[in-house]
Amino acid sequence: MTEIQALTFDVFGTVVDWRSSVAREAERLLSPKGHALDWGAFADGWRARYVPAMAKVSRGERPFAILDALHRENLVELLAERGVAGLTETEIDALNLAWHRLDPWPDVAEGLARLKRRFILATLSNGNVRLMVDMARRAGLPWDAILGAEVARAYKPQPEAYDSAARMLALAPAACLMVAAHPSDLAAAAERGFRTAYVSRPLEHGPDRQPRAPAPGTFDHQVASFIELAEALGV
Amino acid sequence: MTEIQALTFDVFGTVVDWRSSVAREAERLLSPKGHALDWGAFADGWRARYVPAMAKVSRGERPFAILDALHRENLVELLAERGVAGLTETEIDALNLAWHRLDPWPDVAEGLARLKRRFILATLSNGNVRLMVDMARRAGLPWDAILGAEVARAYKPQPEAYDSAARMLALAPAACLMVAAHPSDLAAAAERGFRTAYVSRPLEHGPDRQPRAPAPGTFDHQVASFIELAEALGV
Repeated sequence: MTEIQALTFDVFGTVVDWRSSVAREAERLLSPKGHALDWGAFADGWRARYVPAMAKVSRGERPFAILDALHRENLVELLAERGVAGLTETEIDALNLAWHRLDPWPDVAEGLARLKRRFILATLSNGNVRLMVDMARRAGLPWDAILGAEVARAYKPQPEAYDSAARMLALAPAACLMVAAHPSDLAAAAERGFRTAYVSRPLEHGPDRQPRAPAPGTFDHQVASFIELAEALGV
Repeated sequence: MTEIQALTFDVFGTVVDWRSSVAREAERLLSPKGHALDWGAFADGWRARYVPAMAKVSRGERPFAILDALHRENLVELLAERGVAGLTETEIDALNLAWHRLDPWPDVAEGLARLKRRFILATLSNGNVRLMVDMARRAGLPWDAILGAEVARAYKPQPEAYDSAARMLALAPAACLMVAAHPSDLAAAAERGFRTAYVSRPLEHGPDRQPRAPAPGTFDHQVASFIELAEALGV
């Protein structure tokens, strides 16, 4: 059996808590301007536009655009929908950077530090390079490489997103372990020959929307934290 | 004046001492097999084939190939030239990985740690991603992102190598400071709008071949170490 040499990580939801972080950032920037929204619902509304926006790129209906650009277009629509008017372009830009300031789940720092001792750690996210860099610097995420959509010029679950990561790591796909809280991402990675680790993140969508756990045995590993993953991998 | 936000680094010669490291690795792998060569000259001979090999890619005479692949082709030629016969393919592969095990110059760890406090630090090297990752993990180089030839699919001094780095950092070129021990690299970066820092590395080509220092004022900064660079940038 091929030895695992690298761990490739989904980031939004798996490494960081996008919902409460985006809610916090939106409140911080919009409430001083007199807006009183359900900030968790605001984050949900922004995130709901994410998959459809990427799908347009993946279907070839528009040229590749980085996630910061898609997020900004989606934000403009969302602000109109939620009745938030009168922001300057600079204020919209600042709010768009909320996605660069997401907090990791509590187990991430210790888990990644342990995993890094033995494995190459790379992002395999749909976030663009600068977004990942800003997030990592702020949260202390010890990535060895920022891979994923911008470098691949393809969004997950397109095969090229996974293929390019294994290629740039100079590894057989079976030597790469995809780590994600989302079964669809793991299934697409497995299609390309990656090993798979499901990490449950029950609070990703807030306290009221519990994701359904995959049936036991669906993926190579199924754990509740990065610390459990380190233990499962013997580090 | 645009504020510098990221430092992009040439790596071979600027961050790491390729010559003495490759000489050491070649001696370690070849001398137990009875080969007695001038190991510094062996490293020089390998390195001398580097620019011509990349130039073939840049001139479109062959498709893009990563540096590990070019290094291996060059190694096979060099071994034949120096009369080293009888190595297995696995032994040649192992020797080729010498470039993944290069030691940093003595000022690098402290300099990069200081520079990282304020600036994004990215490689902008002709080395491929895995080579840079292995080197960084072994030497403790705290890169925020691995950019450069493989990600750009273009070798320096091609414009796309520099342009893609600024684009992926979401920065104006003038917000990027190219750090290199080689005037030609800095001149090509300046052509693309980067700011420039020359770091003298008098021992890059061994004790007997001192590189000529550029005239004062040729580049934005001219320093003798990464620690001096940190001081010049006020960190």
